[in-house]
Amino acid sequence: MAKYYGSQDIQNLDQRVRANLINSLSGFKSANLMGTKSDKGVENLAMISSAFHVGANPPLMGILMRPHTVTRDSLENIKASGFFTLNHVNETMVEQAHQCSARYEPDQSEFAATGLTPQYSEGFFAPYVAQSNIKLGLELREIQVLNINLTELVIAQIVEIQTHADYQLEDGYLDIDAANSVCVSGLDSYHRTERVARLSYAKPDTPLHSIWKKST
Amino acid sequence: MAKYYGSQDIQNLDQRVRANLINSLSGFKSANLMGTKSDKGVENLAMISSAFHVGANPPLMGILMRPHTVTRDSLENIKASGFFTLNHVNETMVEQAHQCSARYEPDQSEFAATGLTPQYSEGFFAPYVAQSNIKLGLELREIQVLNINLTELVIAQIVEIQTHADYQLEDGYLDIDAANSVCVSGLDSYHRTERVARLSYAKPDTPLHSIWKKST
Repeated sequence: MAKYYGSQDIQNLDQRVRANLINSLSGFKSANLMGTKSDKGVENLAMISSAFHVGANPPLMGILMRPHTVTRDSLENIKASGFFTLNHVNETMVEQAHQCSARYEPDQSEFAATGLTPQYSEGFFAPYVAQSNIKLGLELREIQVLNINLTELVIAQIVEIQTHADYQLEDGYLDIDAANSVCVSGLDSYHRTERVARLSYAKPDTPLHSIWKKST
Repeated sequence: MAKYYGSQDIQNLDQRVRANLINSLSGFKSANLMGTKSDKGVENLAMISSAFHVGANPPLMGILMRPHTVTRDSLENIKASGFFTLNHVNETMVEQAHQCSARYEPDQSEFAATGLTPQYSEGFFAPYVAQSNIKLGLELREIQVLNINLTELVIAQIVEIQTHADYQLEDGYLDIDAANSVCVSGLDSYHRTERVARLSYAKPDTPLHSIWKKST
């Protein structure tokens, strides 16, 4: 049966129902654990589904941080230190990653609470998650406030990449499917993936072909 | 074998290799076709992997539009008309969706070129994609330029939702997995999904439990 919502229908929804519905609409989202450290040395982890690609050269990512959420500790740590990590959530750590969205006390580390393991790279301030197969070290470049709802868009440059050579193809593509990275839908649903196709560069009047070569 | 890239290693990569690598790092991305119409009546479709959730009340989405890409026609149409659609790409239309990223002439419609079918909702200017199972009508609210690389962030309000009642759960969650929505990795890889878990609201010292109920 067709289902239609107009603007007023959306407005009239119960707040929780609207949150579940609207959060489903953008499509699948990335699943990352954000690692930060406070100036008192407390290691913090936050579950982040709002990280997105901003540019390849320089290599930039954006993360939308909503006000009054558990990510505020992370945001304060980023503002104070200038550094954080993003660690792909894989299928073996979905429950631990989701648990990181609980409101722990500021002096409590989500690493200890969930059993995930902090790992450091030489000379990089923020902790990585040892269990992750794709780990990124980022340096804050800019925070831009979105006028429309005062969310803060953190823009940062990727300065370290730690992964396994097995996942990378010759053309540079990193097979995050083979790395068991999961994706998120709505507020609380986690999904594994399976490749449908990797397709050639599209040109008018030229048939597409598969460019998939299995990683080693 | 562990693979490490530092900032200089990334900088030294061949441009195409760097693009493939960096575009893989944020994680899985949403897959949407953006429908617009020019003031001359030309219907335009663009493949968009940069749509993301901005807020639930009001219901807002953001789309990052990079300069000098094929999405410029779409951006001009949005600026001129104030309206566009986002249509979830599902598994049956992956090749057609990818083909929409080809550089067609401005007077050529990607609908005609790919065989996708335009569909209109009463009183809404921009065309939907009939083949999509989740169709969103959006009204432009604001365009914010990211200072760091001059990409344009389009922020728009969801004013229409067209889907099937079968995909929606009682709590509002829309089962985009059941709707066969795909996700994207890198520049050109498409993936189907399978649910790992839908998890309860996380609280400190409280075990998580599955809240998954199959949609009808």
